[in-house]
Amino acid sequence: MREREEVKSLKAIVLAAGDGTRFKPFTDHNPKPLLPLLGLTLIERILLAAKKAGIRDFVVVLGYKGERVRDFLGDGRRYGIRIEYVENRDWHRGNGTSLLAAESAVKDEEHFVVMMADHVFEPDLLRKALALQPRGRDSVLCVDRDLSGIADLQDATKVHTEGGFIVQIDKRLKHFDAVDTGFFIFSHEIFDALRAADTGHALTLTAGVKRLAERRLIRVVDVTGFFWIDVDRPELLGVAESRLLKTLSKSTDGVVSRWLNRPISTRLTRFLVRTPLSPDTVTAISFMIAVASGILFAVGHLVWAGLLAQFASVIDGVDGEIARLKFRETRLGAFVDSLLDRYGDSAIVLGMSTWAYLSTGNAWTLLLGMAVLAGAPMSMLAKEKFRAITGRDYPIEQAEGWLRYIPDSRDARLFIIMLGGLFGAVIPALVLLAVLTHGKTVWRMYRLAGLLDAPAV
Amino acid sequence: MREREEVKSLKAIVLAAGDGTRFKPFTDHNPKPLLPLLGLTLIERILLAAKKAGIRDFVVVLGYKGERVRDFLGDGRRYGIRIEYVENRDWHRGNGTSLLAAESAVKDEEHFVVMMADHVFEPDLLRKALALQPRGRDSVLCVDRDLSGIADLQDATKVHTEGGFIVQIDKRLKHFDAVDTGFFIFSHEIFDALRAADTGHALTLTAGVKRLAERRLIRVVDVTGFFWIDVDRPELLGVAESRLLKTLSKSTDGVVSRWLNRPISTRLTRFLVRTPLSPDTVTAISFMIAVASGILFAVGHLVWAGLLAQFASVIDGVDGEIARLKFRETRLGAFVDSLLDRYGDSAIVLGMSTWAYLSTGNAWTLLLGMAVLAGAPMSMLAKEKFRAITGRDYPIEQAEGWLRYIPDSRDARLFIIMLGGLFGAVIPALVLLAVLTHGKTVWRMYRLAGLLDAPAV
Repeated sequence: MREREEVKSLKAIVLAAGDGTRFKPFTDHNPKPLLPLLGLTLIERILLAAKKAGIRDFVVVLGYKGERVRDFLGDGRRYGIRIEYVENRDWHRGNGTSLLAAESAVKDEEHFVVMMADHVFEPDLLRKALALQPRGRDSVLCVDRDLSGIADLQDATKVHTEGGFIVQIDKRLKHFDAVDTGFFIFSHEIFDALRAADTGHALTLTAGVKRLAERRLIRVVDVTGFFWIDVDRPELLGVAESRLLKTLSKSTDGVVSRWLNRPISTRLTRFLVRTPLSPDTVTAISFMIAVASGILFAVGHLVWAGLLAQFASVIDGVDGEIARLKFRETRLGAFVDSLLDRYGDSAIVLGMSTWAYLSTGNAWTLLLGMAVLAGAPMSMLAKEKFRAITGRDYPIEQAEGWLRYIPDSRDARLFIIMLGGLFGAVIPALVLLAVLTHGKTVWRMYRLAGLLDAPAV
Repeated sequence: MREREEVKSLKAIVLAAGDGTRFKPFTDHNPKPLLPLLGLTLIERILLAAKKAGIRDFVVVLGYKGERVRDFLGDGRRYGIRIEYVENRDWHRGNGTSLLAAESAVKDEEHFVVMMADHVFEPDLLRKALALQPRGRDSVLCVDRDLSGIADLQDATKVHTEGGFIVQIDKRLKHFDAVDTGFFIFSHEIFDALRAADTGHALTLTAGVKRLAERRLIRVVDVTGFFWIDVDRPELLGVAESRLLKTLSKSTDGVVSRWLNRPISTRLTRFLVRTPLSPDTVTAISFMIAVASGILFAVGHLVWAGLLAQFASVIDGVDGEIARLKFRETRLGAFVDSLLDRYGDSAIVLGMSTWAYLSTGNAWTLLLGMAVLAGAPMSMLAKEKFRAITGRDYPIEQAEGWLRYIPDSRDARLFIIMLGGLFGAVIPALVLLAVLTHGKTVWRMYRLAGLLDAPAV
């Protein structure tokens, strides 16, 4: 049994031969797959997203200025993948000829993925398709049923589906219920279909797919809701950027993070991702900004201190955003980030407490700072312990009831600190933080009692 | 398909008919299964340990003063199990007749567990036996090969094994390589074997097992190293107590916990487990002792404060010990315990800092307290984050190197605090705690960098 069968990972053919005439003058010097998009070229983004979905072996079909793509990507080792190249001298006749050119490169595969070098997507889209595991002569096409979300519907290839199969496919279909996303899993039937459709003139992939559709050989995978975009015209590069940046918000983002930090951090990321700045460097910068905020609090520059605290909170999102956009997430980064965040918070509270003492001469204000420090880890602790004990995720609705709308996560704490700095209300901010974190902890223990009150056996 | 087949849980027969003559005068009024052992009766301990190993349906064979056992246990609902009773009027002829009496109660089972009401054991022993899943006519006997660990070797039933089967079994075997632990999984062959062995006089279970052994129908499961004891004579009750208490130490116990806290806490537990005191109450008491320690520190009663801190640390073990001994572990208990521990620690550090300030008049000592509070959660945080990110347990050797011998866990921190109190060295104790926790955190980040420095993908 060959290795790739053992790991059930398919080979993927990437069609990268076209000349992208609409992208002139860029394409006078470079082929379209090398267009930059948020710090990576289009084709790097396609390869790395597919890698994240589990694919390791790629066949890249080259045509227009193909040697530039080959020189740029190399054998794929620096991306942790393997790339073979196939040249299609017929590329000007259409992408059907490009797929035909790759036939011998997948002769040992029963099925293989086909994707376009200019269709940007999120890994989960491909994961869903790969989960289907087609058999025998069946092929699979990923379709999107949310027609209002298609960036360029007029130019899109429409499909008409029936009972889970494609029955019609064409750019000019009148009646259609979904759109071809350009992500396929094919059996070798596609090669015969393409040869049968070849008249010696233009030969599109769609022409081959049409013949398979007539024979009910193409199943549908519905990937509605997953991010993908066909970067077909220069204007769509900007759309692709915006949508990619939108995918960076997390469902776990707190209120402040969602409405204040993310809008700012993604704008910063949009700029910084084009620089060689590494995510780890940004993590270190965020920590140092927090320390600077603490020092400014201690010496009484409250407004600047407050603004820096909030800025540290914003930058805290940027490292992860850059890492995700560039497919450079590391476990080390996530680990160090979570520990440095904690230290940054402590530095700020230390600075606030120092100023509270110096400005009032009352040492007991320092005990207030202690109460805040004692409360800061309790939220995280309660959640991690719940997970460790039950093996389930922390059930925020059940555990917190309506109090979940009163945030005590890091973004909210740093926002309160900023307000404290801006309005010169450092002691009220400390009191609020102490009440918030300890109050929510007691509330959580009370609510979770009902959830956990069963024998562990 | 019946429910118990779906969950693959066997029925268990508990032989509880004997009169335990050696336990006179106790057994004048009560049968031996109702002997108390660390807060539970012998038979409760057997039933609950088996429940923890996954068994839910029990058949208890009664004989001598059987109605007392039945009145005491009821239908098992309050233990979360189901109990049927079988009466053996022939009990004085030996435990072979007791098993025969239970035949109709297991007529629908292909295999069933048999255990003795006076053989105390840890659940993992039975789990190992149940994992074997015997088939067809095969039966299974759990044997112990560590002959030096048997509490009463002379009185034990010896076995001679060959190639994974019992070939000889008798109390008076000259050549033997293991001991019968009294835990069986039988097929119905045992009933025919017992009938064949029945001469109308004494009929022991061993007589039936002998016949199966001759036909190579009894496989061996080696449970050497697991705790079990046959409480056959009154003196052995004390041995059983000591050994049960020894099973309470955890492999995760810190140095102070292992050598100081456990020896004290298990002695307390030995006493407290006989009272109706609940584990949750003990958790609350431990927390209140910590708060009291903090208050005493604040007002300058350093020696008492230090001793109370250490006492809180000891009591922190007792709640879990009582819960485990009485099979009353709850997820809620574990959750609340971990949160209250943290609050107790904070209260003590707050008290120490207050005294440091009051006794020196130097408010900056309070910043020292803050440094300790900021450092306290970092050890736990690093471990939980590592687990969350990698899905693996925190690798203490790789992550800490030789520094793992310098403890910063809760038991060690409270021990340092006690020393600080005893020697009036509160500020040095705070400095040591701050250096210890922050130093180890930085060290951990540095060491884990090597372990985690691989792409997440």
